[in-house]
Amino acid sequence: MNTTNVRRLLFGEPFPTSREAHERLDKIRGLAIFASDPISSNAYATEAIMTVLVVLGAGALKITVPVALAVAALILLVVFSYIQTIFHYPHGGGSYSVAMDNLGRWPALVAGAALLTDYILTVSVSVSAGVRAVTSAFPELTEYKVLMALAAILLITWINMRGIRESGSVFAIPTYAFVAGVFIVIIIGLVRYTGLFGLAPLEPLPYDPAPIPSISSLLMLWILLRAFAGGCTALTGIEAISNGVGAFKRPESRNAAATMVAMGVIAMTLFLGISFLATYIGLVPNEKDSILSQLTRYVTGEGPIYFWVQAFTALILFLAANTGFQDFPRLSSFLARDGFLPRWLQNRGDRLVFSYGILMLASLASLMVLIFRADEIAMLPLYALGVMLAFTLSQSGMVVLMGKVKKLAPDETLDTGITTLHYERHVNLKRAINVVGAIVTGIVFLILVATKFVEGAWVVALIIPLMVFMFDRINKHYKDVANALTTRGLSDRDLRTVSEVVIVPIGDVHKGTLHALQYAKRLSNDVRAVCVVTSPDMHELIMRRWNRFPELTSGVKLNLIDYDFRDILEPLVDYIGDVHDNECPGQLITVVIPEFIAETWPAQWLHNQTADILRNRLRHLPDVVLIDVPFHIAHAVKSQ
Amino acid sequence: MNTTNVRRLLFGEPFPTSREAHERLDKIRGLAIFASDPISSNAYATEAIMTVLVVLGAGALKITVPVALAVAALILLVVFSYIQTIFHYPHGGGSYSVAMDNLGRWPALVAGAALLTDYILTVSVSVSAGVRAVTSAFPELTEYKVLMALAAILLITWINMRGIRESGSVFAIPTYAFVAGVFIVIIIGLVRYTGLFGLAPLEPLPYDPAPIPSISSLLMLWILLRAFAGGCTALTGIEAISNGVGAFKRPESRNAAATMVAMGVIAMTLFLGISFLATYIGLVPNEKDSILSQLTRYVTGEGPIYFWVQAFTALILFLAANTGFQDFPRLSSFLARDGFLPRWLQNRGDRLVFSYGILMLASLASLMVLIFRADEIAMLPLYALGVMLAFTLSQSGMVVLMGKVKKLAPDETLDTGITTLHYERHVNLKRAINVVGAIVTGIVFLILVATKFVEGAWVVALIIPLMVFMFDRINKHYKDVANALTTRGLSDRDLRTVSEVVIVPIGDVHKGTLHALQYAKRLSNDVRAVCVVTSPDMHELIMRRWNRFPELTSGVKLNLIDYDFRDILEPLVDYIGDVHDNECPGQLITVVIPEFIAETWPAQWLHNQTADILRNRLRHLPDVVLIDVPFHIAHAVKSQ
Repeated sequence: MNTTNVRRLLFGEPFPTSREAHERLDKIRGLAIFASDPISSNAYATEAIMTVLVVLGAGALKITVPVALAVAALILLVVFSYIQTIFHYPHGGGSYSVAMDNLGRWPALVAGAALLTDYILTVSVSVSAGVRAVTSAFPELTEYKVLMALAAILLITWINMRGIRESGSVFAIPTYAFVAGVFIVIIIGLVRYTGLFGLAPLEPLPYDPAPIPSISSLLMLWILLRAFAGGCTALTGIEAISNGVGAFKRPESRNAAATMVAMGVIAMTLFLGISFLATYIGLVPNEKDSILSQLTRYVTGEGPIYFWVQAFTALILFLAANTGFQDFPRLSSFLARDGFLPRWLQNRGDRLVFSYGILMLASLASLMVLIFRADEIAMLPLYALGVMLAFTLSQSGMVVLMGKVKKLAPDETLDTGITTLHYERHVNLKRAINVVGAIVTGIVFLILVATKFVEGAWVVALIIPLMVFMFDRINKHYKDVANALTTRGLSDRDLRTVSEVVIVPIGDVHKGTLHALQYAKRLSNDVRAVCVVTSPDMHELIMRRWNRFPELTSGVKLNLIDYDFRDILEPLVDYIGDVHDNECPGQLITVVIPEFIAETWPAQWLHNQTADILRNRLRHLPDVVLIDVPFHIAHAVKSQ
Repeated sequence: MNTTNVRRLLFGEPFPTSREAHERLDKIRGLAIFASDPISSNAYATEAIMTVLVVLGAGALKITVPVALAVAALILLVVFSYIQTIFHYPHGGGSYSVAMDNLGRWPALVAGAALLTDYILTVSVSVSAGVRAVTSAFPELTEYKVLMALAAILLITWINMRGIRESGSVFAIPTYAFVAGVFIVIIIGLVRYTGLFGLAPLEPLPYDPAPIPSISSLLMLWILLRAFAGGCTALTGIEAISNGVGAFKRPESRNAAATMVAMGVIAMTLFLGISFLATYIGLVPNEKDSILSQLTRYVTGEGPIYFWVQAFTALILFLAANTGFQDFPRLSSFLARDGFLPRWLQNRGDRLVFSYGILMLASLASLMVLIFRADEIAMLPLYALGVMLAFTLSQSGMVVLMGKVKKLAPDETLDTGITTLHYERHVNLKRAINVVGAIVTGIVFLILVATKFVEGAWVVALIIPLMVFMFDRINKHYKDVANALTTRGLSDRDLRTVSEVVIVPIGDVHKGTLHALQYAKRLSNDVRAVCVVTSPDMHELIMRRWNRFPELTSGVKLNLIDYDFRDILEPLVDYIGDVHDNECPGQLITVVIPEFIAETWPAQWLHNQTADILRNRLRHLPDVVLIDVPFHIAHAVKSQ
């Protein structure tokens, strides 16, 4: 079974390139793929707010609802703003593309670095949170949590390597099951709250009515900002759809926008519903029992609905990781296309997915899981910063874009290079929304940096500039290569001249080396066999064997180099360098390497790897053309 | 800093081959290098006997002395027998060589496999025992014992890579310090036993004089045999010197024999002294406090001598591992020389040591440490079997050899191929010793197999035949190669004919590929450029660029292959195979590969590895000559 068969067994038959459009997503699968991240954050977003407020006492928890409303307003603002982006960039308009098109190279690279960092964290945080949901239920598994997280990443990687539509189908069920479960809890809760339909009315829990301690308004503001920052985890993953417009069926923009709206409405509704009911009942955050679990149990009892919600919470958290697997490979392929990341990141694999991007993400996320021992709480301060920075840059870009649209007369169009702008109505209103969006998300970004800096955000603040620097270096390399390869004004004389010298390093005189000499003699009249000998006995032996084949060796000069060390490649490389520098400087010289080829790797392993090592050393000399004349052992044995 | 510099910094400047004789060992260093294994076994050999006997009650421990005498007699027998081997095989006569020379191929391979297995265990057992000595003193280090054992292997590997004389110097001190320490303990013990010189007389400990339980004589025999088998661990490593005769200064045989006698006398004296005193005092084996430690404390008190002996016990156990590093690489180089292991195992490295053998041993011993979690007790049942099997084969070989010597007249000589035999006196006596040796070690081998089989010896019983099978397969491969390469009766017509077809796979039309085409045009008038195109746009683009260089591309046929999958190498390899099979079957065809070379590996990593992958695929076709025409990016950029 060769590697091709193994690959096909694991990942399925290759798809033809022309099938690409058929692999696209409809809205149902698209929502499941792109929304599992923002929707799953309802498993912890309300709790993130309450955990901050509870330091002021249980009485302060009622502030949860206004903070949640502020977060919900932010979600709405971002969604609305992104819908404009989706329609203006039908080929995919993540923050990177928008910033590149409107703000220029550096802001675009910052947005790209911020998002790539965040996508890696999406995977490691979601998988770790999913593992925690499992180990909460089965504490005896706690010691295996790193292993479980890595296994989950491996499983998600495998599913994604099989291709986008299949992964959509797999992921649809848990996402919709989670949404349905939480909706039922909220509806029952609200019905019991109103006291209608004869259900038992929902009574608030008794609580200690201690007043909120009187603290300075500056400290109060700090706590409110931290609570708000906590709630902002609900926004991670929202921008995914704008990047992935191209993954939708036609008409891409319309399908993507509809999915975005559905996602925003669902995420916001769940978030507000949970926040309102939890505050009304008076639930208190508790490390061992999540707010969502407490709420479900209080509203529906510990019955089938409770277990449904708990099970699908764990599942959707694993699947939220999948959002990263959609976004990271796509964004890195954009950066690769523009020459800021290795070009091969834009190659699609056999199943039309960006295989290298998937594998790179899987490796980096696994590394994060290992470094943080699958502890998502420790990773959270690094998270959400990147997304908010990308929002800010994207919205600012849209402000500039709308400025261009504003100047268009009816029937006039403008090609920006990656999209085409038309005359639009209500431009001023739309632009105002983007201005507000840019300012608000910019402020939120600063809040996140300030409140999370010492807890770990500094790491991200360090990594993003480093990545931007790396992007720039890579770009410079590709520009150098393009300049080196350019054929502009090229003529025959610009190409290198080839010297007549052909050097054949040999280790012995046998059928394999004679074979190579025969090939070399076809190329030139100046063939030189070179052999490094390490003892007088060997010197004599080689000479004797050489003289036995006067016909085959005629016209070939034999150079024997006596050498008293064991690294025989050193004098060989020196000899080749000397010939080049002294006899034909600046010209190409040809080295013919006789090489054994055994058919199996265990057999190959039985031979000195001298030919391989020599080839690798000679590759660093600029003017050497290498010719491998193979001698296939199995073939030679069979033909006798 | 390139790899050569790193290597020199780590392992020192290379030695010239002619220095080999200067790197040889004198007797002082030779004893330290070869004897640390058998001498260090005094740290546990007596205890191994007592641990078995104590199941019959403390009273049975007095049987230790007769069992120890039997083991000592066996040591004497083996040493005496090996001295004959050393003089008859002055170029190194381990069991493998002796068996090969006298018994034939299969017994020799069995001996080789048995010894290689045992040498690996020497390293893993000794290092683990040394770590136990350290963790006994510092129990808080217990959780790092696997890591410590691996670090010790790494350190010993490094010292051995630097060369044989240096490692002799490093290892001399602890070996002699251990021997001196234990000798002092035994001398003080014996002086106090005799009551002379006014020292306090040595009183036996009071003990429970319960009689030895009456058990069946069969069971008693079994227990005695197990006790004897335990004591036989004292014999491991004795054969090392006979293998390493060639490592001694001239006269090799005489120096090696003298060292062997010194080693045997020291090992036997220490072993009998410890066994006698421990039995006289009435010490009882105790898991937490070794017999040697108890004895030293009882005889000399917990003073400086006690700590000296304890410290050097730990050190010599680490160093006993070094014996394996002398033996394994040397024996595997013999097997490689005879074509039973990969040939490169006989290559000496820069510092004249068998670098590959050292690295292979280090890897295998580390693997054992990992599998057994550095628990030497668990490894012991696998140990000592191999040595005893090798003894038996070696002695049997000597019996055959002495039979040949017996037939020689005075002044007559006989060349066996690896040694020269002369007329000798007392041949019958010498031969009788070998006969007794062969029978006794054969019986001991059977005892070891029987008493240790279920505890793990079955693993070795399985591995040795597997290794012999592997040796045989490797030998067959090398014979095939030799037949394939033979130049016997070779003439011009036997070499392959070379077809005119030259194929140049290209990915684009740029300076690099035009460069390669120009080289190809020098070789032949039938040059074909092949390009796999994955879209109609690309098809058109390549055609347009191609037509821009009529002068450079004249005479070259361009084949564009339209392909709807992403694995573009598949149609390329198919095309090359088709051309070969249909147009020039049985002839060599030439493929010219244009290849980017970036100067640094991060830069190389930015490019598709297409050229490398294509080369690896084409290597499996039997009739393809590969030409790499390099295009050095840095060079091209600079020269502009």
